[in-house]
Amino acid sequence: MKTTTPIDVELGPGGIMRKLSSILPPLTPRIVKARLKSTTHVSSKYESLDYDVWVNDLLIKEEQCRSYRQIIEINTLRWFLYFLVGVLTGLVAVFIDWSISFLLTNQMQFLVNNMFQCGQILCIISTYLLWYGSFMISTLIGAFLVVFIEPGAAGSGIPYIISYLNGISIPKFTTMKVLIVKIIGVILIAVAGLASGKEGPFIHIGSIIGAIMTSILKCTRIPALCDKISLINTKQEKRDLMAAGCAAGISAAFGSPVGATLMALEEGTSFWNVLLMRRIFFCAIVSTFTFNTILNLLHDNSGQHYSGLFYFGRFNDKTVTYYYAELPLFLIMGAIGGMFGALFVSCASKVAVFRMRYIKSRLWNFMDALFVAFLTATLSIVAMNLSHNCNDVKCESGYPEYTLQMSCSDGTYSEMSVYWLQGKESILRLMFHSSLDIFHTSTLLTFFVIFFVLFILTAGIKMPVGLFIPSLLIGATWGRLFGLVILQIFPDLPASTPAKYALIGAAAQLGGILRTTISLTVLVVEASGVLIFALPLMFTLFISKWVGDFFNEGIYEAQINVLGLPILPSDPLPLTSDIQAKNLMNTKVIVFPTVVSVSYLIEVLERVKHQGFPVVKETCETKRSACDFQTFGELRGFILRYQLMTLLITKSFTAPESSEDVQKMLAQFRKYEYSSIPVQELKFTEEEKQIAIDLKPYMNPSPYTVQMVMSFPRIFRLLRSLGLRHVIVIDNTNQVIGIITRKDLAKFKLGRHATSMFLKELRIR
Amino acid sequence: MKTTTPIDVELGPGGIMRKLSSILPPLTPRIVKARLKSTTHVSSKYESLDYDVWVNDLLIKEEQCRSYRQIIEINTLRWFLYFLVGVLTGLVAVFIDWSISFLLTNQMQFLVNNMFQCGQILCIISTYLLWYGSFMISTLIGAFLVVFIEPGAAGSGIPYIISYLNGISIPKFTTMKVLIVKIIGVILIAVAGLASGKEGPFIHIGSIIGAIMTSILKCTRIPALCDKISLINTKQEKRDLMAAGCAAGISAAFGSPVGATLMALEEGTSFWNVLLMRRIFFCAIVSTFTFNTILNLLHDNSGQHYSGLFYFGRFNDKTVTYYYAELPLFLIMGAIGGMFGALFVSCASKVAVFRMRYIKSRLWNFMDALFVAFLTATLSIVAMNLSHNCNDVKCESGYPEYTLQMSCSDGTYSEMSVYWLQGKESILRLMFHSSLDIFHTSTLLTFFVIFFVLFILTAGIKMPVGLFIPSLLIGATWGRLFGLVILQIFPDLPASTPAKYALIGAAAQLGGILRTTISLTVLVVEASGVLIFALPLMFTLFISKWVGDFFNEGIYEAQINVLGLPILPSDPLPLTSDIQAKNLMNTKVIVFPTVVSVSYLIEVLERVKHQGFPVVKETCETKRSACDFQTFGELRGFILRYQLMTLLITKSFTAPESSEDVQKMLAQFRKYEYSSIPVQELKFTEEEKQIAIDLKPYMNPSPYTVQMVMSFPRIFRLLRSLGLRHVIVIDNTNQVIGIITRKDLAKFKLGRHATSMFLKELRIR
Repeated sequence: MKTTTPIDVELGPGGIMRKLSSILPPLTPRIVKARLKSTTHVSSKYESLDYDVWVNDLLIKEEQCRSYRQIIEINTLRWFLYFLVGVLTGLVAVFIDWSISFLLTNQMQFLVNNMFQCGQILCIISTYLLWYGSFMISTLIGAFLVVFIEPGAAGSGIPYIISYLNGISIPKFTTMKVLIVKIIGVILIAVAGLASGKEGPFIHIGSIIGAIMTSILKCTRIPALCDKISLINTKQEKRDLMAAGCAAGISAAFGSPVGATLMALEEGTSFWNVLLMRRIFFCAIVSTFTFNTILNLLHDNSGQHYSGLFYFGRFNDKTVTYYYAELPLFLIMGAIGGMFGALFVSCASKVAVFRMRYIKSRLWNFMDALFVAFLTATLSIVAMNLSHNCNDVKCESGYPEYTLQMSCSDGTYSEMSVYWLQGKESILRLMFHSSLDIFHTSTLLTFFVIFFVLFILTAGIKMPVGLFIPSLLIGATWGRLFGLVILQIFPDLPASTPAKYALIGAAAQLGGILRTTISLTVLVVEASGVLIFALPLMFTLFISKWVGDFFNEGIYEAQINVLGLPILPSDPLPLTSDIQAKNLMNTKVIVFPTVVSVSYLIEVLERVKHQGFPVVKETCETKRSACDFQTFGELRGFILRYQLMTLLITKSFTAPESSEDVQKMLAQFRKYEYSSIPVQELKFTEEEKQIAIDLKPYMNPSPYTVQMVMSFPRIFRLLRSLGLRHVIVIDNTNQVIGIITRKDLAKFKLGRHATSMFLKELRIR
Repeated sequence: MKTTTPIDVELGPGGIMRKLSSILPPLTPRIVKARLKSTTHVSSKYESLDYDVWVNDLLIKEEQCRSYRQIIEINTLRWFLYFLVGVLTGLVAVFIDWSISFLLTNQMQFLVNNMFQCGQILCIISTYLLWYGSFMISTLIGAFLVVFIEPGAAGSGIPYIISYLNGISIPKFTTMKVLIVKIIGVILIAVAGLASGKEGPFIHIGSIIGAIMTSILKCTRIPALCDKISLINTKQEKRDLMAAGCAAGISAAFGSPVGATLMALEEGTSFWNVLLMRRIFFCAIVSTFTFNTILNLLHDNSGQHYSGLFYFGRFNDKTVTYYYAELPLFLIMGAIGGMFGALFVSCASKVAVFRMRYIKSRLWNFMDALFVAFLTATLSIVAMNLSHNCNDVKCESGYPEYTLQMSCSDGTYSEMSVYWLQGKESILRLMFHSSLDIFHTSTLLTFFVIFFVLFILTAGIKMPVGLFIPSLLIGATWGRLFGLVILQIFPDLPASTPAKYALIGAAAQLGGILRTTISLTVLVVEASGVLIFALPLMFTLFISKWVGDFFNEGIYEAQINVLGLPILPSDPLPLTSDIQAKNLMNTKVIVFPTVVSVSYLIEVLERVKHQGFPVVKETCETKRSACDFQTFGELRGFILRYQLMTLLITKSFTAPESSEDVQKMLAQFRKYEYSSIPVQELKFTEEEKQIAIDLKPYMNPSPYTVQMVMSFPRIFRLLRSLGLRHVIVIDNTNQVIGIITRKDLAKFKLGRHATSMFLKELRIR
């Protein structure tokens, strides 16, 4: 290893200096700085959530008045909350399901009855208008609602949920308004017939229900209930309820409580324990059960049916039998799924970056959605007119339900029309169950190409677009195609039907896009009801993930990167032990002495936007410490901005003494935790400004600290495992010398390029 | 709240003092001290594992020489290791399965052909001898092996695995010797026909394979491979491989990779992330796949069969149909399962305590096992002679395979004999699938009572006893009984068969004993292949857990408590914020200055058994700090006993300079990490003893520290989440004042008594 003279390395725009320790040889420059033009960055607009459990004297006093009886009551209430989240999510699923099937049935019926039944020019024009109208009107309303009323309802919302559960504060994305717009948007986009599914957004819907559950219950204004709820109305609780809501959403969408629980674990939650897993599972069961029960009552089916918003249907035995000899074929399909998945992620990211750069105004976003709807309508009608494959197959169950004759002879229908006239779920069921001859290879191929392009364009529009069903549909299409080819080559292969390959293809494609393995296996098994297929599905999904990962990351990770969300992975990056706290820390720390005057508090809070302040023994004069860093005094505790604000707002300048006063004070803190009153609006008399406040009763007397020589992996593990927002850096004598926040760690990313790996440092902007 | 004068509370025999902070009012005495006679305690004989990632200057230097290419190679090697664990576990499962079925078939054939075929006294005596022999001989060999050769192979091993994964060092429980004795023991106990299953111990077998995988590969002596392996041969890696092996074991046992992964998560692992979950899942798939493939080849079944060591068999459609109206029945069964489960746990714990107190010597342990075998043989033959229920039903598949005529007329067989002549798995399959009339209620009732008693006694003998199958069997028995009663009351209930209730009962009983919900649901669903039953199973298992938890804890938790393993739950105990670091910490800290003489090192290491020592700036004189605690100097780092020992053993008194020397030194540290050479055996010249060693390059310069006022929940979260072994307590100026280890936290337990809750402080002994 080369030893050169130590150099100072400017690490980033934050002005953070890297001083190399004298004991250590200088760093070999292994960190690649991301180019300025690069689209991946860490956005500075997202604040972190603090999942650390706050402790101060007041809270301890309050806790000492509590009994274990209250703990039991709170536990019971908690289970009740999870139960309610499950029930509500199930009910919303029923509503969405019913609305879509009602609107879609009527629309399709009307189209089938009125299209191409005539030869006159005027009639043909009206026919075309009808067709375009069916795509455009719903899109128009949906896009209007999302773009102009509530932009938070766009997309599937999953990247934001993952980020929230990871500890990033996402403003205005779990409100009642988002919920309502999202529900309407999901219905409209399904009716519009765009390349989108309703299952992805459903995860967001469930999460919102989880997040606002405590607020809903507070609205009941039952005093006993509200008292209890205020005790558990913490960030941690909201996070856990959101995770459960997320699982309830998936569970209702696919009728798979286990798969949903696993998906919440694999994709979503960053914080996890067994008890939470059980609660999430419970919530997911209740959601599926509610959905099933009501649907069975509505359809007068006297029990035993087991399904979600999207049930794959009952497979016949021939479809789900497989032989060991087929396993290589499944693995090949896994690889194809991985490649198509990586292609999709890559294209979708490019489109997303294009949209971020050039489609900025609301109007353009609105036009963008309309353009995609127009393109979908055009491509579909062109495809229907140009494709001359005709067919007369009807399954026992009456599928395909809606078809057009187009240029086909009487008694037959255009194969291509099948694709555009059913709901996406119906087409999928058709692909999974129908016999050999329902689609010709050319129909499948044409649809695959058109739909893939449409899917890439649709994925980023400002509507509640879901990725699950289109991915499955694309996979099922090439899977059937693959099956037909296999049957051409090996006509004697036993138990071979395109339906089976459609199922494997669908799973492989979805796996290639999402890059999940366990949860997706279980999800597909539960949704299809075919347990025997679990083993080949697992292998297929592993291959599809590995192949996909060779090219790029999964779609949600890609979306998170494009948005610049400062997410922290579960493990620290490798080979980063030589990056130390003193290289990472922010040295512009603002500290308070333990006793501080009101005027100084006001001044500081007006001047800086910091969310937390170390409390130190000395006054605020800074010194040079022995190690050449500026020190800010001996650490005594840590206090948050909202706590100081609450003190100022309520003018509580003396510490509460009696246990009643403590209760009142804590109630104030809880009340103003999320308020955003600016300091400027507070009025104080000159006398008040001279008062000195003792911060000791309010501050956390024992914040987590790190030594200035602590290595990156150890700081990372501390901050990530405990869900901290701030870590204070101290020197050898417990003097504050800096502060490290999430973004200081999140800006380091592991870059990968096929088989090579490197450490990237992203810009914060 | 009462305010009295502060008092000192002696917290435990460790001499730890609780000093109440002057700001705080005194504690209300909410902590209940466990009685001295109480059987629950925290054992002092178990050391903790350190899952913290060690960092020091040498390691940083080494890491700087590594490239990302190595990281990729290591990742690939890691997947390969998990693959090997899966394959090996699968192979062992095949071996055990084949051995048991070979031995059992021959033994049963012999018994059926030779028993009660004669009337003379001599012949009857020989018949009895045969019967007793069949139980006693295998038990004799098995118990001998376990008691006298390798006591580590006793029991299912699951409480120890849970503890190990939680971070407790369990000596001599993952060696090759344990593995071999366990495998033989499992085969023998199954052949002996005791109330035990082979599935539980299989988890231990898988774990051992995981734990010794790296050692096995090292034995190949391929240099390239061994180099790579030494890089990942860490405690964390071993822990993760063990978790994977555990899942592979369950997966092979029940043919359920998903259920196994979930069980490893729900029961086992305390440390978890998505990547690990995927690896565990991969390992579990490989294990099931290996097992299936080889078994299919052996049985000449050309593919598609999907099963584990214990497959529940294919259910007929009538069995697995259910109606909403039946749900209340399932919930009642869940409650019954919970109650019987709690009864079992309570009785088994009492028997375990009895055995700990009175059956201490090896010989008595051996006799104990023989006594249980004798009792099983006696009770079974008495039951067969006294029960006069006869039957002539034979299922299509030829079951029951082995029967005795006893006092029945020709062409019929004694129902009771069915129970004692099949393997436990065959009886279970019979219970799940056979038609109405195969067992009379009186037979079921008699068997239930006898088997329940035998199960309680068998659970604690010194052999590899598994709890899964006996639990399922007991549940299936009362489940069928329940089904027969239901059919008596509601003869017109559609789709009602005792087989269905047997399945629900089996799950409820196992759930009542283990108290797992998600994993057990998936396990039963995967083992039975009946996806449609997932929903009722989930509800049943939740009820069974809740009802069971009302009375006591699950069997593994109970076993852990009886053994006094200092396990840390995933969340800190409630209402403990007023317990602070200064109340918990051990004040008998031994510190070293950064530069220390060899003679002093030797002296200290001889005198104390501490495993870690803070390194401080000053010399070892102690002072009084401002806060009335003895301080030990300004913290500079932390060093482990084995590191000091390595320095002494290798006589490395100067810090390595060149990168080659660093490599050599690190190799030494890795070599001696697990060695146990006593200090006394080391020889030094007088000159050597005068040498001063600089500890800075070897120590961890930034150990995790806590302020003396940090509250219990925050310390707990730090230690538990990061898997630390030691946490150093510092005062306001970064002076060491104490040290907190796992046992200081683990001794606090939440006691529960029906609906009340309290905090217990256990004795450490």
